[in-house]
Amino acid sequence: MSDSPAFLTDPDGTQEAIMAATYLALCEYGYAGLTIQRIAERFEKSKSLLYHHYDNKDDLLLEFLGFVLDQFEEGVPSTESDDPVDRLEMVLDTMVPTELPDEHRDFVAAVVELRAQAAHDDRYREQFTDHDAFFETRVSDVIERGVESGAFREVDSDRFARLLQTMFVGAMTRRVTTDANLVEDVRAELDTHIEANLLAERTEAAE
Amino acid sequence: MSDSPAFLTDPDGTQEAIMAATYLALCEYGYAGLTIQRIAERFEKSKSLLYHHYDNKDDLLLEFLGFVLDQFEEGVPSTESDDPVDRLEMVLDTMVPTELPDEHRDFVAAVVELRAQAAHDDRYREQFTDHDAFFETRVSDVIERGVESGAFREVDSDRFARLLQTMFVGAMTRRVTTDANLVEDVRAELDTHIEANLLAERTEAAE
Repeated sequence: MSDSPAFLTDPDGTQEAIMAATYLALCEYGYAGLTIQRIAERFEKSKSLLYHHYDNKDDLLLEFLGFVLDQFEEGVPSTESDDPVDRLEMVLDTMVPTELPDEHRDFVAAVVELRAQAAHDDRYREQFTDHDAFFETRVSDVIERGVESGAFREVDSDRFARLLQTMFVGAMTRRVTTDANLVEDVRAELDTHIEANLLAERTEAAE
Repeated sequence: MSDSPAFLTDPDGTQEAIMAATYLALCEYGYAGLTIQRIAERFEKSKSLLYHHYDNKDDLLLEFLGFVLDQFEEGVPSTESDDPVDRLEMVLDTMVPTELPDEHRDFVAAVVELRAQAAHDDRYREQFTDHDAFFETRVSDVIERGVESGAFREVDSDRFARLLQTMFVGAMTRRVTTDANLVEDVRAELDTHIEANLLAERTEAAE
Protein backbone atom coordinates (compact mmCIF):
# COMPACT_ATOMS: atom_id res chain seq x y z
CA MET A 1 0.00 0.00 0.00
CA SER A 2 3.00 2.36 0.24
CA ASP A 3 3.94 2.74 -3.44
CA SER A 4 1.80 4.51 -6.03
CA PRO A 5 -0.10 1.84 -7.95
CA ALA A 6 0.30 1.60 -11.76
CA PHE A 7 -3.27 2.70 -12.51
CA LEU A 8 -2.39 6.09 -10.99
CA THR A 9 0.96 6.73 -12.58
CA ASP A 10 0.11 5.25 -15.96
CA PRO A 11 -3.61 4.43 -16.31
CA ASP A 12 -4.32 1.80 -18.96
CA GLY A 13 -7.60 2.49 -20.78
CA THR A 14 -10.74 4.40 -19.91
CA GLN A 15 -11.75 2.47 -16.80
CA GLU A 16 -8.34 2.87 -15.17
CA ALA A 17 -8.37 6.58 -16.03
CA ILE A 18 -11.76 6.94 -14.32
CA MET A 19 -10.50 5.02 -11.31
CA ALA A 20 -7.40 7.22 -11.14
CA ALA A 21 -9.56 10.36 -11.29
CA THR A 22 -11.77 8.93 -8.54
CA TYR A 23 -8.76 8.14 -6.38
CA LEU A 24 -7.34 11.66 -6.74
CA ALA A 25 -10.65 13.41 -6.09
CA LEU A 26 -11.38 11.14 -3.12
CA CYS A 27 -8.00 11.88 -1.52
CA GLU A 28 -8.48 15.62 -2.06
CA TYR A 29 -12.12 16.06 -1.00
CA GLY A 30 -12.94 13.01 1.11
CA TYR A 31 -16.26 11.20 0.81
CA ALA A 32 -18.46 14.09 1.92
CA GLY A 33 -16.92 16.62 -0.47
CA LEU A 34 -16.78 14.27 -3.46
CA THR A 35 -18.97 14.91 -6.50
CA ILE A 36 -19.10 13.41 -9.99
CA GLN A 37 -18.18 16.93 -11.20
CA ARG A 38 -14.95 16.91 -9.18
CA ILE A 39 -14.05 13.45 -10.48
CA ALA A 40 -14.80 14.62 -14.03
CA GLU A 41 -12.35 17.51 -13.56
CA ARG A 42 -9.59 14.93 -13.08
CA PHE A 43 -10.68 12.83 -16.05
CA GLU A 44 -8.97 13.85 -19.29
CA LYS A 45 -11.34 12.12 -21.68
CA SER A 46 -15.00 12.76 -22.35
CA LYS A 47 -16.75 14.05 -19.25
CA SER A 48 -20.13 13.15 -20.71
CA LEU A 49 -19.01 9.52 -20.68
CA LEU A 50 -18.62 9.76 -16.91
CA TYR A 51 -22.07 11.28 -16.44
CA HIS A 52 -23.53 8.72 -18.81
CA HIS A 53 -22.17 5.74 -16.90
CA TYR A 54 -22.75 6.73 -13.29
CA ASP A 55 -25.97 8.06 -11.83
CA ASN A 56 -24.37 9.17 -8.61
CA LYS A 57 -21.10 9.13 -6.74
CA ASP A 58 -21.94 5.95 -4.82
CA ASP A 59 -22.26 3.91 -8.03
CA LEU A 60 -18.81 5.12 -9.00
CA LEU A 61 -17.30 4.63 -5.53
CA LEU A 62 -18.62 1.07 -5.29
CA GLU A 63 -16.97 0.26 -8.61
CA PHE A 64 -13.85 1.99 -7.30
CA LEU A 65 -13.81 -0.22 -4.18
CA GLY A 66 -14.13 -3.35 -6.31
CA PHE A 67 -11.34 -2.09 -8.54
CA VAL A 68 -9.05 -1.36 -5.60
CA LEU A 69 -9.63 -4.86 -4.26
CA ASP A 70 -8.75 -6.34 -7.67
CA GLN A 71 -5.57 -4.26 -7.65
CA PHE A 72 -4.66 -5.69 -4.27
CA GLU A 73 -5.36 -9.22 -5.45
CA GLU A 74 -3.17 -8.77 -8.51
CA GLY A 75 -0.55 -6.63 -6.84
CA VAL A 76 0.30 -8.76 -3.83
CA PRO A 77 3.79 -10.11 -4.54
CA SER A 78 4.17 -13.83 -4.72
CA THR A 79 5.81 -14.84 -1.49
CA GLU A 80 5.55 -18.63 -1.73
CA SER A 81 9.20 -19.27 -1.09
CA ASP A 82 9.92 -16.64 1.55
CA ASP A 83 10.56 -17.13 5.22
CA PRO A 84 7.24 -17.15 7.20
CA VAL A 85 8.54 -14.66 9.75
CA ASP A 86 9.61 -12.26 6.99
CA ARG A 87 6.26 -12.66 5.23
CA LEU A 88 4.36 -11.87 8.40
CA GLU A 89 6.60 -8.84 8.94
CA MET A 90 5.70 -7.74 5.40
CA VAL A 91 1.99 -8.06 6.19
CA LEU A 92 2.44 -5.94 9.32
CA ASP A 93 4.49 -3.33 7.42
CA THR A 94 1.72 -3.11 4.83
CA MET A 95 -1.24 -3.05 7.22
CA VAL A 96 0.26 -0.98 10.04
CA PRO A 97 3.04 1.03 8.38
CA THR A 98 5.07 3.04 10.87
CA GLU A 99 5.42 5.87 8.34
CA LEU A 100 2.36 7.24 6.57
CA PRO A 101 3.16 9.83 3.87
CA ASP A 102 0.51 12.57 3.49
CA GLU A 103 -0.91 11.30 0.21
CA HIS A 104 -1.28 7.81 1.62
CA ARG A 105 -2.80 9.21 4.81
CA ASP A 106 -5.41 10.95 2.64
CA PHE A 107 -6.25 7.65 0.97
CA VAL A 108 -6.55 5.82 4.30
CA ALA A 109 -8.83 8.62 5.55
CA ALA A 110 -10.99 8.21 2.44
CA VAL A 111 -11.21 4.44 2.94
CA VAL A 112 -12.25 4.95 6.57
CA GLU A 113 -15.01 7.30 5.36
CA LEU A 114 -16.10 4.85 2.66
CA ARG A 115 -16.20 2.02 5.18
CA ALA A 116 -18.47 4.09 7.43
CA GLN A 117 -21.01 4.18 4.57
CA ALA A 118 -21.32 0.42 5.07
CA ALA A 119 -22.98 1.07 8.44
CA HIS A 120 -26.20 1.98 6.58
CA ASP A 121 -25.66 0.91 2.95
CA ASP A 122 -25.75 -2.81 2.05
CA ARG A 123 -23.79 -2.32 -1.17
CA TYR A 124 -20.84 -0.84 0.72
CA ARG A 125 -21.18 -3.55 3.37
CA GLU A 126 -20.88 -6.19 0.68
CA GLN A 127 -17.68 -4.59 -0.63
CA PHE A 128 -16.07 -4.35 2.80
CA THR A 129 -17.14 -7.88 3.68
CA ASP A 130 -15.19 -8.98 0.58
CA HIS A 131 -12.23 -6.73 1.41
CA ASP A 132 -11.91 -8.06 4.93
CA ALA A 133 -12.36 -11.67 3.82
CA PHE A 134 -9.62 -11.22 1.22
CA PHE A 135 -7.13 -9.84 3.72
CA GLU A 136 -8.06 -12.38 6.38
CA THR A 137 -7.45 -15.20 3.91
CA ARG A 138 -4.09 -13.72 2.92
CA VAL A 139 -2.97 -13.39 6.53
CA SER A 140 -4.32 -16.82 7.40
CA ASP A 141 -2.32 -18.34 4.50
CA VAL A 142 0.87 -16.72 5.75
CA ILE A 143 0.25 -18.10 9.23
CA GLU A 144 -0.76 -21.55 7.97
CA ARG A 145 2.47 -21.91 5.97
CA GLY A 146 4.47 -20.86 9.01
CA VAL A 147 2.71 -23.53 11.05
CA GLU A 148 3.44 -26.13 8.37
CA SER A 149 7.11 -25.18 8.22
CA GLY A 150 7.45 -25.35 11.99
CA ALA A 151 8.36 -21.66 12.27
CA PHE A 152 5.03 -20.96 14.01
CA ARG A 153 3.15 -22.81 16.73
CA GLU A 154 0.05 -24.90 16.11
CA VAL A 155 -2.34 -21.94 16.25
CA ASP A 156 -5.80 -21.61 14.70
CA SER A 157 -4.63 -19.63 11.67
CA ASP A 158 -8.10 -18.38 10.69
CA ARG A 159 -8.83 -17.08 14.14
CA PHE A 160 -5.38 -15.55 14.54
CA ALA A 161 -5.81 -13.81 11.16
CA ARG A 162 -9.24 -12.58 12.18
CA LEU A 163 -7.83 -10.92 15.29
CA LEU A 164 -4.99 -9.38 13.29
CA GLN A 165 -7.35 -8.03 10.61
CA THR A 166 -9.57 -6.56 13.35
CA MET A 167 -6.52 -4.87 14.81
CA PHE A 168 -5.47 -3.60 11.36
CA VAL A 169 -8.90 -1.99 10.83
CA GLY A 170 -8.71 -0.46 14.31
CA ALA A 171 -5.21 0.92 13.77
CA MET A 172 -6.10 2.34 10.34
CA THR A 173 -9.23 3.95 11.78
CA ARG A 174 -7.63 5.37 14.91
CA ARG A 175 -4.63 6.84 13.13
CA VAL A 176 -6.80 9.04 10.90
CA THR A 177 -9.56 9.80 13.46
CA THR A 178 -7.44 10.76 16.49
CA ASP A 179 -4.30 12.78 17.16
CA ALA A 180 -2.81 9.97 19.22
CA ASN A 181 0.60 8.82 18.10
CA LEU A 182 -0.16 5.16 18.54
CA VAL A 183 1.40 3.17 15.74
CA GLU A 184 4.78 2.48 17.32
CA ASP A 185 3.15 1.28 20.55
CA VAL A 186 0.72 -0.91 18.63
CA ARG A 187 3.49 -2.44 16.53
CA ALA A 188 5.72 -3.05 19.55
CA GLU A 189 2.89 -4.68 21.52
CA LEU A 190 1.86 -6.75 18.50
CA ASP A 191 5.42 -8.01 18.20
CA THR A 192 5.30 -9.05 21.85
CA HIS A 193 2.10 -11.03 21.28
CA ILE A 194 3.38 -12.62 18.10
CA GLU A 195 6.61 -13.60 19.82
CA ALA A 196 4.72 -15.13 22.76
CA ASN A 197 1.83 -16.77 20.89
CA LEU A 198 2.90 -17.45 17.34
CA LEU A 199 6.62 -17.93 16.90
CA ALA A 200 7.93 -21.36 17.70
CA GLU A 201 9.92 -21.42 20.91
CA ARG A 202 13.59 -20.91 20.24
CA THR A 203 15.08 -23.40 22.64
CA GLU A 204 13.17 -26.39 21.32
CA ALA A 205 11.51 -27.44 18.10
CA ALA A 206 7.77 -26.94 17.79
CA GLU A 207 5.87 -29.99 19.01
CA MET B 1 -23.00 0.15 27.00
CA SER B 2 -25.70 -2.54 26.96
CA ASP B 3 -28.36 -0.94 29.18
CA SER B 4 -30.33 2.14 28.21
CA PRO B 5 -28.70 5.13 29.91
CA ALA B 6 -30.75 7.30 32.29
CA PHE B 7 -30.73 10.36 30.01
CA LEU B 8 -32.76 8.31 27.50
CA THR B 9 -35.33 6.73 29.77
CA ASP B 10 -35.77 9.74 32.05
CA PRO B 11 -34.01 12.86 30.70
CA ASP B 12 -33.24 15.42 33.41
CA GLY B 13 -33.62 18.99 32.12
CA THR B 14 -33.46 20.58 28.69
CA GLN B 15 -29.93 19.55 27.74
CA GLU B 16 -30.55 15.87 28.50
CA ALA B 17 -33.81 16.01 26.54
CA ILE B 18 -31.93 17.44 23.54
CA MET B 19 -29.25 14.75 23.88
CA ALA B 20 -31.93 12.03 24.08
CA ALA B 21 -33.60 13.39 20.94
CA THR B 22 -30.22 13.46 19.18
CA TYR B 23 -29.50 9.88 20.22
CA LEU B 24 -32.85 8.62 18.92
CA ALA B 25 -32.64 10.50 15.62
CA LEU B 26 -29.03 9.40 15.11
CA CYS B 27 -29.92 5.74 15.66
CA GLU B 28 -32.84 6.00 13.26
CA TYR B 29 -31.29 8.01 10.40
CA GLY B 30 -27.54 7.63 10.82
CA TYR B 31 -25.16 10.54 10.33
CA ALA B 32 -25.95 11.17 6.66
CA GLY B 33 -29.72 11.26 7.13
CA LEU B 34 -29.65 13.34 10.30
CA THR B 35 -31.04 16.89 10.27
CA ILE B 36 -31.80 19.42 13.01
CA GLN B 37 -35.43 19.08 11.89
CA ARG B 38 -35.43 15.36 12.62
CA ILE B 39 -33.90 15.92 16.03
CA ALA B 40 -36.48 18.64 16.73
CA GLU B 41 -39.26 16.14 15.96
CA ARG B 42 -38.04 14.05 18.90
CA PHE B 43 -37.71 17.03 21.23
CA GLU B 44 -40.88 17.71 23.22
CA LYS B 45 -40.03 21.26 24.31
CA SER B 46 -39.58 24.39 22.23
CA LYS B 47 -38.21 23.54 18.80
CA SER B 48 -37.13 27.15 18.28
CA LEU B 49 -34.77 26.70 21.23
CA LEU B 50 -33.02 23.95 19.29
CA TYR B 51 -32.68 26.07 16.16
CA HIS B 52 -31.55 29.02 18.26
CA HIS B 53 -28.75 27.08 19.95
CA TYR B 54 -27.28 25.08 17.08
CA ASP B 55 -26.32 26.41 13.67
CA ASN B 56 -25.95 22.97 12.15
CA LYS B 57 -26.06 19.31 13.00
CA ASP B 58 -22.30 19.08 13.55
CA ASP B 59 -22.43 21.64 16.39
CA LEU B 60 -25.09 19.51 18.03
CA LEU B 61 -23.34 16.20 17.35
CA LEU B 62 -20.07 17.45 18.79
CA GLU B 63 -21.88 18.46 21.97
CA PHE B 64 -23.56 15.04 21.90
CA LEU B 65 -20.20 13.26 21.70
CA GLY B 66 -18.90 15.26 24.67
CA PHE B 67 -22.08 14.44 26.57
CA VAL B 68 -21.81 10.72 25.81
CA LEU B 69 -18.23 10.72 27.05
CA ASP B 70 -19.31 12.44 30.29
CA GLN B 71 -21.99 9.78 30.68
CA PHE B 72 -19.38 7.07 30.34
CA GLU B 73 -17.11 8.78 32.85
CA GLU B 74 -19.90 9.08 35.40
CA GLY B 75 -21.53 5.75 34.61
CA VAL B 76 -18.55 3.42 34.88
CA PRO B 77 -19.16 1.41 38.03
CA SER B 78 -16.59 1.68 40.74
CA THR B 79 -14.62 -1.54 40.57
CA GLU B 80 -11.85 -0.77 43.05
CA SER B 81 -12.35 -3.88 45.13
CA ASP B 82 -13.09 -6.43 42.42
CA ASP B 83 -10.92 -9.21 41.14
CA PRO B 84 -8.62 -7.97 38.28
CA VAL B 85 -9.54 -10.89 36.04
CA ASP B 86 -13.27 -10.19 36.54
CA ARG B 87 -12.75 -6.50 35.88
CA LEU B 88 -10.90 -7.20 32.65
CA GLU B 89 -13.69 -9.59 31.64
CA MET B 90 -16.16 -6.76 32.30
CA VAL B 91 -14.15 -4.43 30.04
CA LEU B 92 -14.19 -7.04 27.27
CA ASP B 93 -17.92 -7.68 27.71
CA THR B 94 -18.54 -3.94 27.41
CA MET B 95 -16.22 -3.25 24.49
CA VAL B 96 -16.75 -6.45 22.48
CA PRO B 97 -20.17 -7.72 23.58
CA THR B 98 -21.04 -11.09 22.07
CA GLU B 99 -24.70 -10.05 21.78
CA LEU B 100 -25.62 -6.75 20.15
CA PRO B 101 -29.35 -5.92 20.34
CA ASP B 102 -30.68 -4.00 17.31
CA GLU B 103 -31.02 -0.67 19.07
CA HIS B 104 -27.48 -0.88 20.37
CA ARG B 105 -26.25 -1.96 16.96
CA ASP B 106 -27.81 1.21 15.52
CA PHE B 107 -25.96 3.31 18.07
CA VAL B 108 -22.63 1.60 17.33
CA ALA B 109 -23.25 2.18 13.61
CA ALA B 110 -23.89 5.87 14.31
CA VAL B 111 -20.69 6.16 16.36
CA VAL B 112 -18.70 4.54 13.54
CA GLU B 113 -20.15 7.12 11.14
CA LEU B 114 -19.42 9.98 13.55
CA ARG B 115 -15.85 8.75 13.98
CA ALA B 116 -15.37 8.78 10.22
CA GLN B 117 -16.12 12.53 10.26
CA ALA B 118 -12.90 12.88 12.26
CA ALA B 119 -10.95 11.88 9.14
CA HIS B 120 -11.52 15.40 7.77
CA ASP B 121 -12.89 17.48 10.68
CA ASP B 122 -10.55 18.56 13.49
CA ARG B 123 -13.39 19.08 15.97
CA TYR B 124 -14.51 15.47 15.64
CA ARG B 125 -10.90 14.34 15.79
CA GLU B 126 -10.48 16.17 19.11
CA GLN B 127 -13.56 14.40 20.51
CA PHE B 128 -12.43 10.94 19.44
CA THR B 129 -8.89 11.59 20.67
CA ASP B 130 -10.47 12.27 24.10
CA HIS B 131 -12.76 9.22 23.85
CA ASP B 132 -9.92 6.87 23.02
CA ALA B 133 -7.66 8.35 25.69
CA PHE B 134 -10.40 7.91 28.28
CA PHE B 135 -10.94 4.24 27.45
CA GLU B 136 -7.22 3.54 27.18
CA THR B 137 -6.69 5.01 30.63
CA ARG B 138 -9.56 2.93 32.07
CA VAL B 139 -8.19 -0.27 30.57
CA SER B 140 -4.64 0.58 31.58
CA ASP B 141 -5.81 1.12 35.20
CA VAL B 142 -7.48 -2.29 35.25
CA ILE B 143 -4.28 -3.90 33.96
CA GLU B 144 -2.04 -1.92 36.29
CA ARG B 145 -4.00 -3.03 39.37
CA GLY B 146 -3.82 -6.62 38.21
CA VAL B 147 -0.06 -6.30 37.87
CA GLU B 148 0.16 -4.81 41.37
CA SER B 149 -1.93 -7.61 42.85
CA GLY B 150 0.14 -10.28 41.16
CA ALA B 151 -2.81 -11.56 39.12
CA PHE B 152 -1.19 -10.26 35.92
CA ARG B 153 2.36 -10.38 34.65
CA GLU B 154 4.70 -7.38 34.61
CA VAL B 155 3.41 -6.02 31.31
CA ASP B 156 3.53 -2.44 30.01
CA SER B 157 -0.06 -1.62 30.96
CA ASP B 158 -0.32 1.50 28.76
CA ARG B 159 0.88 -0.35 25.69
CA PHE B 160 -1.28 -3.38 26.38
CA ALA B 161 -4.31 -1.07 26.82
CA ARG B 162 -3.45 0.71 23.58
CA LEU B 163 -3.48 -2.55 21.64
CA LEU B 164 -6.77 -3.58 23.28
CA GLN B 165 -8.42 -0.24 22.52
CA THR B 166 -7.24 -0.50 18.89
CA MET B 167 -8.76 -3.95 18.72
CA PHE B 168 -12.02 -2.66 20.29
CA VAL B 169 -12.30 0.08 17.64
CA GLY B 170 -11.60 -2.48 14.91
CA ALA B 171 -14.19 -4.94 16.25
CA MET B 172 -16.83 -2.22 16.66
CA THR B 173 -16.14 -0.98 13.12
CA ARG B 174 -16.06 -4.38 11.44
CA ARG B 175 -19.21 -5.68 13.09
CA VAL B 176 -21.32 -2.84 11.63
CA THR B 177 -19.52 -2.51 8.27
CA THR B 178 -19.32 -6.17 7.23
CA ASP B 179 -21.59 -9.21 7.31
CA ALA B 180 -18.86 -11.33 8.87
CA ASN B 181 -19.83 -13.04 12.09
CA LEU B 182 -16.55 -12.34 13.79
CA VAL B 183 -17.15 -11.47 17.41
CA GLU B 184 -16.95 -14.95 18.91
CA ASP B 185 -13.70 -15.67 17.07
CA VAL B 186 -12.25 -12.34 18.14
CA ARG B 187 -13.22 -12.88 21.77
CA ALA B 188 -11.88 -16.44 21.81
CA GLU B 189 -8.58 -15.40 20.26
CA LEU B 190 -8.31 -12.42 22.62
CA ASP B 191 -8.79 -14.77 25.56
CA THR B 192 -5.94 -16.91 24.24
CA HIS B 193 -3.64 -13.90 24.04
CA ILE B 194 -4.64 -12.62 27.45
CA GLU B 195 -4.11 -16.06 28.96
CA ALA B 196 -0.65 -16.34 27.36
CA ASN B 197 0.58 -12.78 27.82
CA LEU B 198 -1.25 -11.20 30.72
CA LEU B 199 -2.45 -13.68 33.31
CA ALA B 200 0.13 -14.77 35.83
CA GLU B 201 1.24 -18.36 35.29
CA ARG B 202 -0.80 -20.77 37.30
CA THR B 203 1.89 -23.14 38.47
CA GLU B 204 4.13 -20.47 39.94
CA ALA B 205 3.80 -16.96 41.29
CA ALA B 206 4.57 -14.08 38.92
CA GLU B 207 8.22 -13.11 39.13
